[in-house]
Amino acid sequence: MPQRKIDIFDTTLRDGEQVPGCKLNTKEKIELAIALEDLGVDILEAGFPISSPGDFNSVREISKVVKNVTITALSRAVQKDIEVAADALKYAVRPRIHTGIGTSDLHIKSKFNSNREDILQRAIQCVKWARNFVDDVEFYAEDAGRTDNEYLARVIEAVIGAGASVVNIPDTTGYCLPHQYGDKIAYLKNNVSNIDKATISCHCHNDLGLATANSIAGVIAGAGQIECTINGLGERAGNTSLEECVMILKQHHSLGFYTNIKTEKLNPMSRLVSDTMRMPVQPNKAIVGGNAFAHSSGIHQDGFLKDALTYEIINPRDVGADDSKIVLTARSGRSALAHRFQKIGYQFNRNDVDALYQQFLVVADKKKEVQDEDLHQMAKEYQLTVVNA
Amino acid sequence: MPQRKIDIFDTTLRDGEQVPGCKLNTKEKIELAIALEDLGVDILEAGFPISSPGDFNSVREISKVVKNVTITALSRAVQKDIEVAADALKYAVRPRIHTGIGTSDLHIKSKFNSNREDILQRAIQCVKWARNFVDDVEFYAEDAGRTDNEYLARVIEAVIGAGASVVNIPDTTGYCLPHQYGDKIAYLKNNVSNIDKATISCHCHNDLGLATANSIAGVIAGAGQIECTINGLGERAGNTSLEECVMILKQHHSLGFYTNIKTEKLNPMSRLVSDTMRMPVQPNKAIVGGNAFAHSSGIHQDGFLKDALTYEIINPRDVGADDSKIVLTARSGRSALAHRFQKIGYQFNRNDVDALYQQFLVVADKKKEVQDEDLHQMAKEYQLTVVNA
Repeated sequence: MPQRKIDIFDTTLRDGEQVPGCKLNTKEKIELAIALEDLGVDILEAGFPISSPGDFNSVREISKVVKNVTITALSRAVQKDIEVAADALKYAVRPRIHTGIGTSDLHIKSKFNSNREDILQRAIQCVKWARNFVDDVEFYAEDAGRTDNEYLARVIEAVIGAGASVVNIPDTTGYCLPHQYGDKIAYLKNNVSNIDKATISCHCHNDLGLATANSIAGVIAGAGQIECTINGLGERAGNTSLEECVMILKQHHSLGFYTNIKTEKLNPMSRLVSDTMRMPVQPNKAIVGGNAFAHSSGIHQDGFLKDALTYEIINPRDVGADDSKIVLTARSGRSALAHRFQKIGYQFNRNDVDALYQQFLVVADKKKEVQDEDLHQMAKEYQLTVVNA
Repeated sequence: MPQRKIDIFDTTLRDGEQVPGCKLNTKEKIELAIALEDLGVDILEAGFPISSPGDFNSVREISKVVKNVTITALSRAVQKDIEVAADALKYAVRPRIHTGIGTSDLHIKSKFNSNREDILQRAIQCVKWARNFVDDVEFYAEDAGRTDNEYLARVIEAVIGAGASVVNIPDTTGYCLPHQYGDKIAYLKNNVSNIDKATISCHCHNDLGLATANSIAGVIAGAGQIECTINGLGERAGNTSLEECVMILKQHHSLGFYTNIKTEKLNPMSRLVSDTMRMPVQPNKAIVGGNAFAHSSGIHQDGFLKDALTYEIINPRDVGADDSKIVLTARSGRSALAHRFQKIGYQFNRNDVDALYQQFLVVADKKKEVQDEDLHQMAKEYQLTVVNA
């Protein structure tokens, strides 16, 4: 089956950086940009140049250094924004201007005090302005998730006509359910006459915990690009997690998609972003959390030790994580205990294990985690033989 | 439209507690159980009694204290496990035994060195054993996510025939995509002749970041119960997040479901679990993360200040969070700056704002977050007038 390439558009340095406390200076942004290029992202959104002189400078310096990916800069549908974005991108080998405007009735009325016809014209205009500077223009229809599909299709058809090569369908508030977001992408595929001239992009937010599922639903329905961030960073509950989408497409090979991400670099990349932005990753974060490959319960440990596949669908080495951990707690069973005793050099028989396990539970009920030193103490009291130690 | 009630089965104290470092003593478990009862969960999985004397005691003590919810205890398909679980539950007003066995070919072969026919008989047997002690028996088909649907349907039909009132379809390894998990539930709805005599339960894991989406897909396809944990705690990348599922069902009212959860208690509950289990919640966690309702970028702040609905689909008070935050960074715009200056007592005109904004950007490009003291300093230099201060 021929596989379809999905472009990974990383916006850690733009939408990710919009997080309180995460602002980066130019030096930090360049360091992360180089690491993202090395990870294999296709498009890197470097910043929002009009927002501040510092961010303008970051986009310019990244454009000088990072040559193997498309560099994108954000702008509103405002001429000055677009001129400044183009200026910031002037050293980029493959520059893209990302511009657009809100299209939901709520945004049209509350933010712009405007109407659908006027917004349609402004959408066309901003793409034309951007095309004066670059060939690669991405248009975003902000709050597309809550935009009427018929009007959205009109806007998308018009901006493609005006020269947009990528059309971004953001679920800005993270409201859509996966089938709804997928249906929206399918609607555009079926109702925009020139849709094949552009790539549809998914840009989802995680306010209800659905950003990853929505992005995958979008790809299945025909989108060709996912906008995402490392660790799912972003304003409020964050953006789509790059690492989750990439691993879903990889593990579900039968869907027929692939990306160019070097997955074994995902965990080091996650740590670099977490350290640089000072944003902790919770232990139970998928793919890159500290516990993502840790087994603690007896049922799981027993199965895992017989065949890792019983409880693990990803080899931790494939995502650059340490090997799976077997953690000893009061929920652990005999097989995990025996495994650990063997690992630290003890010899025993089945009766020993039963007796040691009762003693282990007494210790484990008192402690969060039983360590090797506790086992050595138990072995000493029980007079176990040490081998190969 | 009549709304269908979805039961919330909380397993923070059982599957959540299986996390390395999260083990709880009896006193802590009781405290959390009382808070979960107060939150409005329907079923509370209190522990796995056979696993240790400490956990047996926790289940027994919780059963004595928590009277308004169903108390469940886990067991394997082993007679001794079930007897111990029943004993631990003897003081419960509404006891449920949760028992089951792996049904995927991988589990049948690697874990049990067995065959489908034998496993089917053991499944029937464990439900019968449990029914000797309680009327409410939940059967889990471990690794159902990777179990052949036709065989799964046979097992489910047989255990309902043996007296199971709830049938749990775990995606144990977190492998399914939402449409696959939904299709599995729909298959059971359509192919198990006695399915209407039992409630189908979703139990999903988050290894690919899809636990929430899968659970919702299961409910849409006909499931009546979601197994979940506070903060999505659980082994590896964790379980389904209670707070995410509950808020999806609440915000998407048109789906036709409701739960009994008192949503305004979600954030206090999240903090209590995080503190007690010493498991941090990342700032960009949906619903309960520290930044879930924080706005930092200028575009968002401007829209938010005009109408909160432009960027917020949940009122933070509805989930017991603090009011939305407007954080000033180099990505903030004039309207957020003016809003904050007004809030801390200054009077100014439009020209002032332009000049102050340029000065603000110089400060903001150097700092992660601009604080009120920085603004007071700028106001002093610019000789702004203080009003109402």
